[in-house]
Amino acid sequence: MPHLLDVPGMSRWIQREGPESLLTGLLATLEDDLRRWSSFQKIPRVASHTPFGVIELMPITDGELYSFKFVNGHPMNPARGLQTVTAFGVLADVDNGYPIFFAEMTLLTALRTAAQSALAAREMARSGARVHALIGAGSQAEFQALAFRAVLGIDQLRVFDVDEAAVEKVRRNLEPLGLAVHLAVSVDEAVAGADVITTCTADKAHAAVLHRDQVRPGVHVNAIGGDCPGKTELDPALLESARVVVEYEPQTRVEGEIQQLDEDFPVTELWQVVAGEAAGRTDDEEITVFDSVGFALADFSALRFAQQATRGSDLLSWIDLIADPDDPKDLFSLITARTPTG
Amino acid sequence: MPHLLDVPGMSRWIQREGPESLLTGLLATLEDDLRRWSSFQKIPRVASHTPFGVIELMPITDGELYSFKFVNGHPMNPARGLQTVTAFGVLADVDNGYPIFFAEMTLLTALRTAAQSALAAREMARSGARVHALIGAGSQAEFQALAFRAVLGIDQLRVFDVDEAAVEKVRRNLEPLGLAVHLAVSVDEAVAGADVITTCTADKAHAAVLHRDQVRPGVHVNAIGGDCPGKTELDPALLESARVVVEYEPQTRVEGEIQQLDEDFPVTELWQVVAGEAAGRTDDEEITVFDSVGFALADFSALRFAQQATRGSDLLSWIDLIADPDDPKDLFSLITARTPTG
Repeated sequence: MPHLLDVPGMSRWIQREGPESLLTGLLATLEDDLRRWSSFQKIPRVASHTPFGVIELMPITDGELYSFKFVNGHPMNPARGLQTVTAFGVLADVDNGYPIFFAEMTLLTALRTAAQSALAAREMARSGARVHALIGAGSQAEFQALAFRAVLGIDQLRVFDVDEAAVEKVRRNLEPLGLAVHLAVSVDEAVAGADVITTCTADKAHAAVLHRDQVRPGVHVNAIGGDCPGKTELDPALLESARVVVEYEPQTRVEGEIQQLDEDFPVTELWQVVAGEAAGRTDDEEITVFDSVGFALADFSALRFAQQATRGSDLLSWIDLIADPDDPKDLFSLITARTPTG
Repeated sequence: MPHLLDVPGMSRWIQREGPESLLTGLLATLEDDLRRWSSFQKIPRVASHTPFGVIELMPITDGELYSFKFVNGHPMNPARGLQTVTAFGVLADVDNGYPIFFAEMTLLTALRTAAQSALAAREMARSGARVHALIGAGSQAEFQALAFRAVLGIDQLRVFDVDEAAVEKVRRNLEPLGLAVHLAVSVDEAVAGADVITTCTADKAHAAVLHRDQVRPGVHVNAIGGDCPGKTELDPALLESARVVVEYEPQTRVEGEIQQLDEDFPVTELWQVVAGEAAGRTDDEEITVFDSVGFALADFSALRFAQQATRGSDLLSWIDLIADPDDPKDLFSLITARTPTG
């Protein structure tokens, strides 16, 4: 029977281990998987768009494990008390096709996105980066901030959002953890002095929340909010002036910030940087952009890490979703009186 | 929190209502959905093939509900005590993207496949059909037989399988339910006198289990075992001589029996027959073939039917997979000590 790491289990796991410990572990697993990039069967995600938002399935396999994530994106949800993004994921055994692990992935996706952002920034930001500007104070904000502290040692945060209550929420959540949080009243104020800028907004529109002239030479931009056709955050002129790294080029051409640019605009894939095959940054004056849309490999890594780390623990339960008759050809036996509950 | 209809719940539901009652209800829901075919966003299923088998995701939406099914197909599984096919499915609310219903779908898929086969046969078999030959006595066999009795009144079954124990299993399961079960020692013996022939074998290969000269004029062939590239059951000459109905032409051209024929071989889609826009059969001498590979719409119908029929019952439980913080922008609150379990 497959294991289940549900919302209470995931919450307790993160509390018990601490988010920064898990972010570091996730990063290591993701790095391992990126180094064996060619061993994965990359499958484009399957998106179903409606006027309200999008529902996506994101599968991938390395030939031994198969994973997929169900994830939605509904920008109008918070106004009615719901999450913009919710997700769950499944690991299956490729050898026999059976699901083996179900997990909530709203929290896990926030962790994996932040771990990946920090991994990219480790390779792309200038050494000695000390100030992190956060444009957008939604569900991802605290996870991004903690990942940058855990991996790059950045403990100075400058936050802007059009929603002042959301900015205050970030301060309330992060100051007790020892981060210095400056509440900015504008994007300009937030990015002043920043070495790294994370854009993490949710409007389903072409919204240039960050312009070319707001970004100093040498800054690293971590763009995670623009992630589907018609949904971008960066001024195209900023992208054109930058070294751009993406997760998986065929997907990012359609869904990422670079959907605004010509198809021959040069980009590098993150795995190439991690494997040492390409540079994340070539000099201290360069502007670098990680144009992140969310690729299935990071979910695979996150599920694999969560499964291994929680194995045998009291965090897991079981989910009885896979019919298992004694005689595999006698499925019908599950509905006869002889074996009433399978 | 989403509802869960797990294996014990599904088993009890089928026992309580009786498989034939559910098959009839499923057929009615499927028929409703086929009549509004154009209102569905059809999405090709996403298959990940390996040497051992296949894992697929099958999504579809009508703009109000979204469904997907996870399903594997591993022909070598029974030899090691596992099911060839296991499945589970999810319904989500398109308006906000939240999953609302999880269900085991190994049993439910067997029911929906049988209900669809019977619906097609109702439109395509000669009136007065009395004898059903079943080639393949695996997990689907009993469900097919019961659907044909429930919908067409056929209570004479002739069964052949290379695995004699599987044939005996069908007899053991179905004779107590009042079906007359003849155990055949060859395909030829099984199909002798049959009005309807169901082929339901699992080899992942081009295996012609039924040849043109084994099928009398006027017979309806219900071909459900060939369902992916390289996996077929019927002699191409049989197909060429028949009226062929499929679920969804773009998918069946790749996955169905007709993958063996030219791309311009004429086929009809089942919804056209159900809606009265095309004939299922034009005369009593015609051979008809329902070339069924499994399309997401039937899973949508099955999940919708199961959700409605079990609503408010003791068959359901809950699955806590969707994070639900009080403040939708404060996902981080789920991992602070203030709200430890979300």
